Amino acid sequence: MGAAKSSCQGFLHYAFDYETPKTLVVPSIAAGVVFRFTQLLILLYLVGYVCIVQKAYQDTDSVVSTVTTKVKGYAVIKGSANTSSPQFRDVADYVIPPQGDKSFFVVTNMIVTTNQKVSHCPEIPKPSTLCNQDSQCTTGLEDLRGNGVRTGRCVNYSDTVQTCQVLSWCPLEEDTGPNKEALIDAAENFTLLIKNSVTYPKFNFHRRNIMPHINSSYLKTCVFNSSTDPHCPIFRLKQIVSDAGEEFQVMAVEGGVLGILIDWTCDLDLWASQCLPKYSFRRLDDNNKSHVLAPGYNFRFAKYYKSPEGTESRTLIKAYGIRFEVIVFGTAGKFSMLPTLVNLGSTLTFLSLVPTVSDWFLLTFTKKRGVYSKHKTTHLRDEDEEDEDENKQSMSMGTSYGTQ
Amino acid sequence: MGAAKSSCQGFLHYAFDYETPKTLVVPSIAAGVVFRFTQLLILLYLVGYVCIVQKAYQDTDSVVSTVTTKVKGYAVIKGSANTSSPQFRDVADYVIPPQGDKSFFVVTNMIVTTNQKVSHCPEIPKPSTLCNQDSQCTTGLEDLRGNGVRTGRCVNYSDTVQTCQVLSWCPLEEDTGPNKEALIDAAENFTLLIKNSVTYPKFNFHRRNIMPHINSSYLKTCVFNSSTDPHCPIFRLKQIVSDAGEEFQVMAVEGGVLGILIDWTCDLDLWASQCLPKYSFRRLDDNNKSHVLAPGYNFRFAKYYKSPEGTESRTLIKAYGIRFEVIVFGTAGKFSMLPTLVNLGSTLTFLSLVPTVSDWFLLTFTKKRGVYSKHKTTHLRDEDEEDEDENKQSMSMGTSYGTQ
Amino acid sequence: MGAAKSSCQGFLHYAFDYETPKTLVVPSIAAGVVFRFTQLLILLYLVGYVCIVQKAYQDTDSVVSTVTTKVKGYAVIKGSANTSSPQFRDVADYVIPPQGDKSFFVVTNMIVTTNQKVSHCPEIPKPSTLCNQDSQCTTGLEDLRGNGVRTGRCVNYSDTVQTCQVLSWCPLEEDTGPNKEALIDAAENFTLLIKNSVTYPKFNFHRRNIMPHINSSYLKTCVFNSSTDPHCPIFRLKQIVSDAGEEFQVMAVEGGVLGILIDWTCDLDLWASQCLPKYSFRRLDDNNKSHVLAPGYNFRFAKYYKSPEGTESRTLIKAYGIRFEVIVFGTAGKFSMLPTLVNLGSTLTFLSLVPTVSDWFLLTFTKKRGVYSKHKTTHLRDEDEEDEDENKQSMSMGTSYGTQ
Repeated sequence: MGAAKSSCQGFLHYAFDYETPKTLVVPSIAAGVVFRFTQLLILLYLVGYVCIVQKAYQDTDSVVSTVTTKVKGYAVIKGSANTSSPQFRDVADYVIPPQGDKSFFVVTNMIVTTNQKVSHCPEIPKPSTLCNQDSQCTTGLEDLRGNGVRTGRCVNYSDTVQTCQVLSWCPLEEDTGPNKEALIDAAENFTLLIKNSVTYPKFNFHRRNIMPHINSSYLKTCVFNSSTDPHCPIFRLKQIVSDAGEEFQVMAVEGGVLGILIDWTCDLDLWASQCLPKYSFRRLDDNNKSHVLAPGYNFRFAKYYKSPEGTESRTLIKAYGIRFEVIVFGTAGKFSMLPTLVNLGSTLTFLSLVPTVSDWFLLTFTKKRGVYSKHKTTHLRDEDEEDEDENKQSMSMGTSYGTQ
Repeated sequence: MGAAKSSCQGFLHYAFDYETPKTLVVPSIAAGVVFRFTQLLILLYLVGYVCIVQKAYQDTDSVVSTVTTKVKGYAVIKGSANTSSPQFRDVADYVIPPQGDKSFFVVTNMIVTTNQKVSHCPEIPKPSTLCNQDSQCTTGLEDLRGNGVRTGRCVNYSDTVQTCQVLSWCPLEEDTGPNKEALIDAAENFTLLIKNSVTYPKFNFHRRNIMPHINSSYLKTCVFNSSTDPHCPIFRLKQIVSDAGEEFQVMAVEGGVLGILIDWTCDLDLWASQCLPKYSFRRLDDNNKSHVLAPGYNFRFAKYYKSPEGTESRTLIKAYGIRFEVIVFGTAGKFSMLPTLVNLGSTLTFLSLVPTVSDWFLLTFTKKRGVYSKHKTTHLRDEDEEDEDENKQSMSMGTSYGTQ
Repeated sequence: MGAAKSSCQGFLHYAFDYETPKTLVVPSIAAGVVFRFTQLLILLYLVGYVCIVQKAYQDTDSVVSTVTTKVKGYAVIKGSANTSSPQFRDVADYVIPPQGDKSFFVVTNMIVTTNQKVSHCPEIPKPSTLCNQDSQCTTGLEDLRGNGVRTGRCVNYSDTVQTCQVLSWCPLEEDTGPNKEALIDAAENFTLLIKNSVTYPKFNFHRRNIMPHINSSYLKTCVFNSSTDPHCPIFRLKQIVSDAGEEFQVMAVEGGVLGILIDWTCDLDLWASQCLPKYSFRRLDDNNKSHVLAPGYNFRFAKYYKSPEGTESRTLIKAYGIRFEVIVFGTAGKFSMLPTLVNLGSTLTFLSLVPTVSDWFLLTFTKKRGVYSKHKTTHLRDEDEEDEDENKQSMSMGTSYGTQ
């Protein structure tokens, strides 16, 4: 019985005896101050930088978003208003693609080539297409910088100029660059409605840019203004372009790409109502003309027609204009255990370095460092190893040159 | 020789003597249990929360994805089936844009205005367009909420109503809202094939939603069902909408935006075959009509025609319908050294706090705390500093009020 | 006075006395070497892996990007060149959508069905549409794998075959698969200009793929080549496809999806000029035909015409071709305080484990472990607790079985 109890106690002692470092309390106020001050510095870093500035106690998630857009407005093409055939354009004509995507193009200027048919016609005059006789026009040559396949004939382009004949959509487009003034200059007054709904999937947080608490009669008449109406989802194109630091009528001539950035960066630990979109605008293409290949933004598209006899013709439109891109971004943060503990643990490590710093201060700079060192550090001499039965501790006064 | 050897040994001792803390083993089972229990708690947190719940030993990557879609089906427009001119629509008519993008629109309802030409016609009657005489219609006024540029004339809209004349695409669209029942109600039976290939570039992991091990004759006839056929890539539109908690025929009237979410969240440390797409469906626009500006989803587009004489006309279509957006998301995790070590290190820090907690317990709550404190802590009295030659250690019984 | 001063000193001692562990310096070069070597290993891991390989001192940001594309080139449809009605295609005809998005489709092959009108015609013969008499054709049946709504009549498809009549766009498309050779084979010579501007919002870093220092006359004539011209933004379609490991003329027959990947991974701590785009190319759809439902890439679209009498007809085009997707990705890293400190702290934790390892080595493997243990560890015996007034320390030679 006694033996059993004893062996059980032995096991308990073996498993649960507690080993704790022996310590020395040193009445050095200087070392104590260094110790406390270093601790304070690290705590300030933890609270100030890690918690307040970096919000390292938060888990983060990236925004998932859907955008639909709707442009409104119409325009009479410049110069056509008082002619016999005024040209009128509305949304269905100038917004490409029409379906209200987050990226859409508004035509502001164009070169229209009507009634093109696949046939033979003389090339546009330029050094490589000029000719005097058929032999200068290689049959079948497909010059990718030309406009069609050469037929091998040299024909009159005008009374004075002869060029190689090509198979192509004729008449060829005479691309002399965009009109110096945008044809659809009224586009600056068009309005744009943006509907944007966002989700932070990790936090199951949904929100729309049209807030439910906003008066719906206000929404029907408001126009966005970054200072007075920052939450109105209706934008005037001219305002967007000028907020991006550009002038609409200048940009409308050659076209460009304009970003409408919606920032949904949110701190979801605060009241959710604080999570509101912030709009900003930035030109995305390079408008430094000297450096740029093909400045501005344009593309060609065609409308196809068929005559009663069945021959196909097309109207080719080289459209210059502004591509608007709604770019939604943002990161939401919310308190989470793991990053908190990781960052806390990482900071506490620095706290555990404080004693090392203080010891170094104590044994290097205090007046009585000799006494402290003597009591703190025990040097085991090689000779001590011989006389194991003695119990003498060497308290040598020499420099403490141990590792730590 | 002896001196050289001795100085070499001196250097070795200086560089490699090992300084280790002196410890006291206390036979307090209570303190030992507190110590082991706190260690256990932290280990459980490490294993349970950090490793199993958060998988903090993994590096993560976001999915890069490509989606192509293909809609199949045809419909006879409601009410036209038994007329002399039935109207028939197939994929090329109702899917916009046609090219099988990850975002596409299926027309389900529409207002068609045929044979519009740019000309003069009376405005749609509303308070701001009604008139009795020409002077009420300002020439050239471009009211952005109107439909065209005023010519300055007041003309008959009907036998009883006069409105200002405008230059526009005439006749104007009479937008009295969508038909109360969707015109292309058969759209609910259309099928959608989604081909989705994903990549996790960091792990060089590629996968497709059409798994190679799936029987290809099954693929030709299957229809997605979240419980019975969760990996069939062919979806019935009605099923998608009802899985999103909406009713197709209701949503088809005014239109809306519907998200098809494909979740590729994967743990690549498991067998790769476990990495399968999970489909879910959610309505993305706001269907709470009381709060909403321009509810539903619609846009206008036009088909252009030319008469043999060369005058252009268009058919304007205000299309209501459902925009489907395939949204692919997911994060893959795979074991990686750096996050493992960072999180391990961070947890080990907490382990290094355990002795502090146990010491506090030992010196505060155990019965024999006085004895333990006496043996653990040496108080150096100020007087000790005077008599350096003595070697007396003060073992005062007072409260241990040192820093730690 | 003296009492006040004394109580003040008492408080200072209470707050600022410094408690430091007592240590033992052991002249064991083996233990010292183990200690230093383990420290060295951890420092190497910190410097080598954490800093150099993982760049864990950097904060990272994901790229935000805008892409515009422009295709150039024209083609005569194969086989039509020497006929009386050659067919010619240029950018406006074969690029869908035309507006220069980051994802666009180039038509390379097609099945054209001209002059379709909504009317009645016999179904394409296949087992489910063959018939001998009207009763085999259920009126109104809408078979989604068929082409239209059955009228209930069985009519002659050809002299020998009878099929059910349907209401549809007639004549029906005879889809016998794509031509075995691509109709627009010249598409391989088309060129593609990519304009890409990227932003790392967190670091306020902007850049374009057309670098300002690159000669603009070079840009006008260059063609991308991964080894000789890696920064030319003009690509030849054939080159893109072959860099992706495919053959253009093979891929052009049935179509496919081709990714143009632009990698902007940058280390912004280096000179910013080192941050250049890296282009690579990869086929994104599955070209393993045995596994694939609907291999290749195709879609149907229509051009609509109206006869002078007002009846609508359309030309249905089943377009096969290559969808190009410009995928921009990348992560930029830049020195930042928080990740540096988190990773540093985490590594220092491992340093704080070194003494534990060395102590274990010292007390287990050194020859004189008995002596070291005796001096390092003090065992408080249970009896000691009885005689508090004595001051005897038990220095038992037994195994050190304390916790640590």
